Amino acid sequence: MSVLGLDLGGTKLAAALFNEEGRILHRVVKRVAGRKGADVARLIADLIKDYMSLVGKGNEVASIGISVPGISYQATRKVWAPNIPGWTDYPLYDEVGDAAGDIPIVIDSDRSCYILGEVWKGNAAGCRDAIFLGVGTGIGAGIMINGEVLRGSHDIAGAIGWMALDRPFSKKYVGCGCFEYHASGEGIPRVAREFLKGNSRYNGVLRNIAPEKITTHEVFKAFDEEDPIAIKVINQSIEFWGMAAANLVSLLNPEKIIFGGGVFGPAKRLVPMIKEEASKWSQPVGINQVIFDVSALGGDAGIYGAGYLALRRIGI
Amino acid sequence: MSVLGLDLGGTKLAAALFNEEGRILHRVVKRVAGRKGADVARLIADLIKDYMSLVGKGNEVASIGISVPGISYQATRKVWAPNIPGWTDYPLYDEVGDAAGDIPIVIDSDRSCYILGEVWKGNAAGCRDAIFLGVGTGIGAGIMINGEVLRGSHDIAGAIGWMALDRPFSKKYVGCGCFEYHASGEGIPRVAREFLKGNSRYNGVLRNIAPEKITTHEVFKAFDEEDPIAIKVINQSIEFWGMAAANLVSLLNPEKIIFGGGVFGPAKRLVPMIKEEASKWSQPVGINQVIFDVSALGGDAGIYGAGYLALRRIGI
Repeated sequence: MSVLGLDLGGTKLAAALFNEEGRILHRVVKRVAGRKGADVARLIADLIKDYMSLVGKGNEVASIGISVPGISYQATRKVWAPNIPGWTDYPLYDEVGDAAGDIPIVIDSDRSCYILGEVWKGNAAGCRDAIFLGVGTGIGAGIMINGEVLRGSHDIAGAIGWMALDRPFSKKYVGCGCFEYHASGEGIPRVAREFLKGNSRYNGVLRNIAPEKITTHEVFKAFDEEDPIAIKVINQSIEFWGMAAANLVSLLNPEKIIFGGGVFGPAKRLVPMIKEEASKWSQPVGINQVIFDVSALGGDAGIYGAGYLALRRIGI
Repeated sequence: MSVLGLDLGGTKLAAALFNEEGRILHRVVKRVAGRKGADVARLIADLIKDYMSLVGKGNEVASIGISVPGISYQATRKVWAPNIPGWTDYPLYDEVGDAAGDIPIVIDSDRSCYILGEVWKGNAAGCRDAIFLGVGTGIGAGIMINGEVLRGSHDIAGAIGWMALDRPFSKKYVGCGCFEYHASGEGIPRVAREFLKGNSRYNGVLRNIAPEKITTHEVFKAFDEEDPIAIKVINQSIEFWGMAAANLVSLLNPEKIIFGGGVFGPAKRLVPMIKEEASKWSQPVGINQVIFDVSALGGDAGIYGAGYLALRRIGI
């Protein structure tokens, strides 16, 4: 018996066939970029069919999990994915169901899959209360509570990029949220640009880059060269990440918080400093009951999560 | 059949006998103040015995729920209650178990009971994802997720008084947390005193009170008289309550947030303004899926919650 996990992103679709123990038997990546709406669903359906004909006797696909870059609505079985044109309320379940025949399909959001992946095969293995704090272009959280992924009343729980951390409210936060404004992959260069604007006497390495070309990568590179603006930007990011993590600890009392996404990455080494900042703010008992760690699975967290979705669906 | 709910506070112990529909058949209040440790457990045990002999045939107590002003540890069956001297890790379950004989007892924290009470018979009736935001001397939250009360990994979830909302960190927050420092029943007069200190030209009604005697009640009275310092204090409280509520919405996507505790109370009328503040910060879809309301049960939320604890224990 095997299960199939599919991880859909804005640019690629990754698929992996897992055995029951979670070992990858086969994997493949398809290009998504340029496709839209029903084309993307067809790509998924074709890949499902490929895998179903690929596997031999005794190794049949027992269930399929799909991670989507957005929201999966349980009641309507539709999905919202801002990076797939035409997927504002798209009937993905219905569109790929025929390809799978009688085999059950489960669809969930990428952030749900990230924490599932880490709980199954990553740094939250065995946890029942754990959080994946994903910091990439945007910020989102996959939250596991007592062994179940938190959905909320309408499937949009975990929108932690909107966390209010810095009063008073500023119009800058409209459209992305306060936390994401300051401390995401888009936020870090944005803050750097703001600091550069406010400091005409600074003449360091970030001055050599056109402001609109500054990236998180450049900021970390400058940070490594002890550039004062980069240090200020990263220190402020640590403050925001620490406050947000502290709020998760005080509110949810988790066993683990896993930092992942593209920014962790270069920010991996900052986790001890983030814990130190969080320790100032958090409920003081809960902070000693939680471990801060980074993703063990990196870019594979979604596909492992999709595999675990599939496996959980058939009660294994 | 009936169930018994007991609500222990720092100064009194309330008990109520409920029928299956949640109607109160009998209730009583006992004084706790001055007692400590085992004396308080004895008071509870005696009250349980009283009720068991009180009820007639066909009306037997089928289960007992107890709300404690602190934490109830599920694994050890011990409790922590800072206002009961000697209850730092107290074996309450073992101490009152004999009085109940074969009848099951469930013990939970007051904040868990508040949301259970509101879900059973209050303004969150029928909700599966709802939050009780209790603002009294301190601030805590009872959080229901998909029909179950959130416990966290070590039973201390809901410590929302520690929410980080105002950077940078200040040493003032040690011991109570940032949110509680600013916007609790102790925080409101504290902020008023700070504003008074920083405004020597102010000569309004709050100057007529010795600073250490200012209470939340006095601040609201001055607010009603359009006193400028009181307005500033209350507006800042609205900002903090709105930010905290927004964070609950973005993170947990609840159906309802119920504002309760002593401060709501006088702050009841502010709920529309709190919602307005929260709307600025929150994930924009989730804020339209949530209703902000006040406690329907007021001081009875705990006893209703204890009754519902008991009823849920026997699967009704």
